[in-house]
Amino acid sequence: MFRFSLHKTDGSARLGEFETPHGVVRTPAFMPVGTQGTVKGMLFKDLEEAGAELVLGNTYHLHLRPGDELIGRLGGLHRFAGWDRPILTDSGGYQVFSLAERRRITEEGAEFQSHIDGSRHHLTPEGAVDIQARLGSDVAMVLDECLAYPATREEAAESMRRSVRWAARCRSRIEVLRSSSPPERVVSNAGQAQFGIVQGGVFSDLRCESADATQAIGFEGYAIGGLSVGEPIDLMYDIVSETARRLPVAQPRYLMGAGTPEDLVECVARGIDMFDCVLPTRNARNGQLFTSQGRLNIRNARYAEDAGPPDPACRCYTCRRHSRAYLRHLHLSGEMTAGALNTLHNLTFYLDSMKRIRDAIAFGTFDTFRQEFLRSVSRPAHDS
Amino acid sequence: MFRFSLHKTDGSARLGEFETPHGVVRTPAFMPVGTQGTVKGMLFKDLEEAGAELVLGNTYHLHLRPGDELIGRLGGLHRFAGWDRPILTDSGGYQVFSLAERRRITEEGAEFQSHIDGSRHHLTPEGAVDIQARLGSDVAMVLDECLAYPATREEAAESMRRSVRWAARCRSRIEVLRSSSPPERVVSNAGQAQFGIVQGGVFSDLRCESADATQAIGFEGYAIGGLSVGEPIDLMYDIVSETARRLPVAQPRYLMGAGTPEDLVECVARGIDMFDCVLPTRNARNGQLFTSQGRLNIRNARYAEDAGPPDPACRCYTCRRHSRAYLRHLHLSGEMTAGALNTLHNLTFYLDSMKRIRDAIAFGTFDTFRQEFLRSVSRPAHDS
Repeated sequence: MFRFSLHKTDGSARLGEFETPHGVVRTPAFMPVGTQGTVKGMLFKDLEEAGAELVLGNTYHLHLRPGDELIGRLGGLHRFAGWDRPILTDSGGYQVFSLAERRRITEEGAEFQSHIDGSRHHLTPEGAVDIQARLGSDVAMVLDECLAYPATREEAAESMRRSVRWAARCRSRIEVLRSSSPPERVVSNAGQAQFGIVQGGVFSDLRCESADATQAIGFEGYAIGGLSVGEPIDLMYDIVSETARRLPVAQPRYLMGAGTPEDLVECVARGIDMFDCVLPTRNARNGQLFTSQGRLNIRNARYAEDAGPPDPACRCYTCRRHSRAYLRHLHLSGEMTAGALNTLHNLTFYLDSMKRIRDAIAFGTFDTFRQEFLRSVSRPAHDS
Repeated sequence: MFRFSLHKTDGSARLGEFETPHGVVRTPAFMPVGTQGTVKGMLFKDLEEAGAELVLGNTYHLHLRPGDELIGRLGGLHRFAGWDRPILTDSGGYQVFSLAERRRITEEGAEFQSHIDGSRHHLTPEGAVDIQARLGSDVAMVLDECLAYPATREEAAESMRRSVRWAARCRSRIEVLRSSSPPERVVSNAGQAQFGIVQGGVFSDLRCESADATQAIGFEGYAIGGLSVGEPIDLMYDIVSETARRLPVAQPRYLMGAGTPEDLVECVARGIDMFDCVLPTRNARNGQLFTSQGRLNIRNARYAEDAGPPDPACRCYTCRRHSRAYLRHLHLSGEMTAGALNTLHNLTFYLDSMKRIRDAIAFGTFDTFRQEFLRSVSRPAHDS
């Protein structure tokens, strides 16, 4: 039921779409992060109006609370959360490495304690597949080991090879679930796709080895993991270029956890089709707005009596209705509406930027667009 | 520019409307509380869709932050906040008594220190008029002294008589502002109405004295203050009855700070036209939902797998789209979306209840409605 179509390329940039059991997603696509079954600060109706076609759900969080068993009994994550459009779930691995306590990694999987209540859990590759099957996302990710940066070549190689072995186990498990007839009780979405993840740190040859080995297993799509974790930006772009070139043309490529507006455009230019990042939502709650004129920190005193919209070029509800002076007041007053209005703007800016990227590829003007976009959004923040 | 029209009565219940420079408000009306220029957890578009025709702004908060001078320079509170419908502002007195530090009350006014930064302020009756003139609300309130409960008869009498003297000074000041030609620079809304406030604690004769003295000064409307502060509910209802009877038929009557759904119906039955209360918004953030079947605490474990809507009889976005199980998950996860969705429901419930009250008065069936409403909303909470 998952099908990717590549419509057009412009340099290495790709225009396409993929079909899922919950509808079509146009690529290049940005996924707002819906950690706990909601995108922080946004009602789903506003997220739909902003143009989100796909959201990311975090397996680690949903597994711990309210539990994938419960979500499965209630018909899967779409029905549980009231979101009818496509959902991608991560494998939980990243949060095990970044949030959980007392984690221990073995060949079998990861043991850890919940950051919420200290309860003990065991996450195996097969378990990560089963959890995501219960959640019923449209795209599931394999469990991978997340390498800290910096890491030695040996650490990166060992970790990458373990991730490849885990990926093979994830693929075997989902094939068991798919071939069960009728599908096992755990499956909430029979049309779920599964993406592999390329690791290998900042080492080109390891990335190539990982890309080849992951493709040899065979997935509906391929992600690039373990970047945007502190490495220099040019190194990240180089690794993205090299890895994307090594991946199959006919399947979507997802750069996990990136990025800034600049990253989106630069990595589309290197052949990436999908992105997710907490930046637009998290920074919104901290008062940072992404605009067509650069970044803007709404706390800045210069906005105290600024009656203009956050971004004059933006069509969003926040920009149509509210001034910088008002948003600054709400933020300084600690009103939750501040976070809501800022989030609505930042996500609209990200989603509109993706639309402009797609339009530029369609018109064959991506490179011009890229230069203009970088000039506008990267200008030294006008309130720095 | 302020005009109240009484369309129909049913017993003591009154159906009417009043015109303001920003539109018509149908009464009986409930005002969501917009403390700092926003109703906590709600975007204005959702508040409009829920049917709010009037919101309350808190003078104390707006005076301290961002400041009424700033709001006045930006064209008044409507323009500053992006809310085009009517606004009523309180005088700031209640917050001076409940929030501010080191307050000292003299005949001249109230001295206090800001709860935000400890800065020293002086609020006089004339100052409260000027601040609200800068805010440009459609209805301004006189500065009154807020009596603690319980209070002796002597304390209540002395406080009430001071409030009457302050009311006269407020009226004199607004008449100066109105007669200035062109209006003084401080005025953001030339059609602003001013309401007097009846005090007198729980002492009927003091309430009568206050009602008479306040009317003798003459205002566009009359509020009943100093209730819903801890006195027994039957005593509050009695004072409301007696005071409302003493007020002019041709002008609106506003019961300040009340109340529960039961209070709304019971006090409409006693002749009240306007209400404000933080209950629907504050309790929403704490997980309490007001429904047609009684109160519901969303934290309760019985809702963990409840796929039904919060209130099957409700038309709001939250009830149309989300389940109790999902709202419980969001609340327990500390997601701000929980507060937003619960607030949207509770305010819709309050505003829809006011509409049903108005319809019942229009049809001459208010007493039947009142009995049925009380039976449904007051049943022992089904999750207690």
